[in-house]
Amino acid sequence: MTSPVRYRAVVAYLGTRFHGWQEQKNAARTVQAVLAAALRPLAREAVRVEGASRTDAGVHADGQVVHFDLPRRREPRAVRDGANDRLPEDVRLLSVEEAARDFHARFDAAWKEYVYRWSRAAVIAPRDAPFVAPLSPRADAARMREAAAALPGRRDFRVFAVSTPAGEPTVRTLTRVAIEEDGDELRAVLCGDGFLRGMARSICGVLADASRGRVPADRIARLLASGDRRLLCSKAFARGLTLRRVVYEPDRPPEDRPGALHSSP
Amino acid sequence: MTSPVRYRAVVAYLGTRFHGWQEQKNAARTVQAVLAAALRPLAREAVRVEGASRTDAGVHADGQVVHFDLPRRREPRAVRDGANDRLPEDVRLLSVEEAARDFHARFDAAWKEYVYRWSRAAVIAPRDAPFVAPLSPRADAARMREAAAALPGRRDFRVFAVSTPAGEPTVRTLTRVAIEEDGDELRAVLCGDGFLRGMARSICGVLADASRGRVPADRIARLLASGDRRLLCSKAFARGLTLRRVVYEPDRPPEDRPGALHSSP
Repeated sequence: MTSPVRYRAVVAYLGTRFHGWQEQKNAARTVQAVLAAALRPLAREAVRVEGASRTDAGVHADGQVVHFDLPRRREPRAVRDGANDRLPEDVRLLSVEEAARDFHARFDAAWKEYVYRWSRAAVIAPRDAPFVAPLSPRADAARMREAAAALPGRRDFRVFAVSTPAGEPTVRTLTRVAIEEDGDELRAVLCGDGFLRGMARSICGVLADASRGRVPADRIARLLASGDRRLLCSKAFARGLTLRRVVYEPDRPPEDRPGALHSSP
Repeated sequence: MTSPVRYRAVVAYLGTRFHGWQEQKNAARTVQAVLAAALRPLAREAVRVEGASRTDAGVHADGQVVHFDLPRRREPRAVRDGANDRLPEDVRLLSVEEAARDFHARFDAAWKEYVYRWSRAAVIAPRDAPFVAPLSPRADAARMREAAAALPGRRDFRVFAVSTPAGEPTVRTLTRVAIEEDGDELRAVLCGDGFLRGMARSICGVLADASRGRVPADRIARLLASGDRRLLCSKAFARGLTLRRVVYEPDRPPEDRPGALHSSP
């Protein structure tokens, strides 16, 4: 009699042709469904794949983390290669390792890092086009930085969220918000212990408008203070956003985990 | 009575879905044909586009340079934007400027820089997959560098060329060959005053095999000395190769150019 074995994997995908992470009732192409289909032949049964972050349609991932169970133990490399052989070219398991029985990709995540990329170039090269949003050549990094200064800390980010169910907690901690300038490119790096639905793109929409002076630099401070959604700007395009990585606290030793069978390597 | 005006443009494209640069008699999708089709409505007549480099099928360009004539003067930005509006998403004019009447993208090029990218990672992320070739994790930058050391200089590179017509000169100067290591990635940067057909990919095939010890590090020296094509390795995959830039000598003043009407800005 064998017990199922839990695996943890780092996944990269191009969001362009996916209707987001989460499996849907219709036949929409989602990352979760495509991964489950690629793992099914290895499991010889249906596989449920849980992701750390439920990225929106069009949002990319360089380091999404997922977990799933297989009914019996297999070499992590064989799982990785077996799944990759079956996956379409816009999604790949970068690495697979055996995880503690109770590891949960979403609930155990300590923090996540998103990056949003804009280009101020008159023309965006085809190589970059799927990953950057256009921004006015007059957009100014200093103004974007000034607006972003109100973000870090533990705050109620409800005003930036899309359709938050009543009663759902909306306080999150942004540990680091950095505005990077690299030639024509501007980037916002957002690190936090959690992101509400639509939050990253709502924030980036305000940052973009602040950078070109369309809204004052105190707009984010005012949004947070007032909770007034009429002060929001247009949400930034999905294609500019990438989930760069998900970080977990150092693994507890397996004996600390209820029901744990195996620690991660 | 107006004279045609010559334009010079920097062009970026993803080689993946093109049958190379050069227009063909069949209906193959080539960069040259796609550019000519996008410029035709601006010219209101057929436009012939000459490129500095006739890149192979699958080879990318970050900085191909082209020239073409329009029957009357138009704002370079209007030409750029008008063409880009009509171009498919895998090719873009990054910049357009008016050029001397006798400027020739190919004949006037002083040197070109190609870069070849390999990944030694077990899994290549979808974002990189169109631009890198896989290489063994044991491939060694030092061995690749040792093999490449025989390349720089003015030499007869005929042994690396594909189907050179009899009588065509095959002496070229490689001014710089650098092997760069960046984590799992290895890159070969090749700068030269000209590249024979297939030369860059033939050289990179030998570099790849030398890096993993499949052929001795003196293989390139022996190929150049002997001209013996039986010593060649498999040509490197097209997708790893990118034409990064084309450099021209500082423009001569227009009065030095026979028939010149306008200098470049």
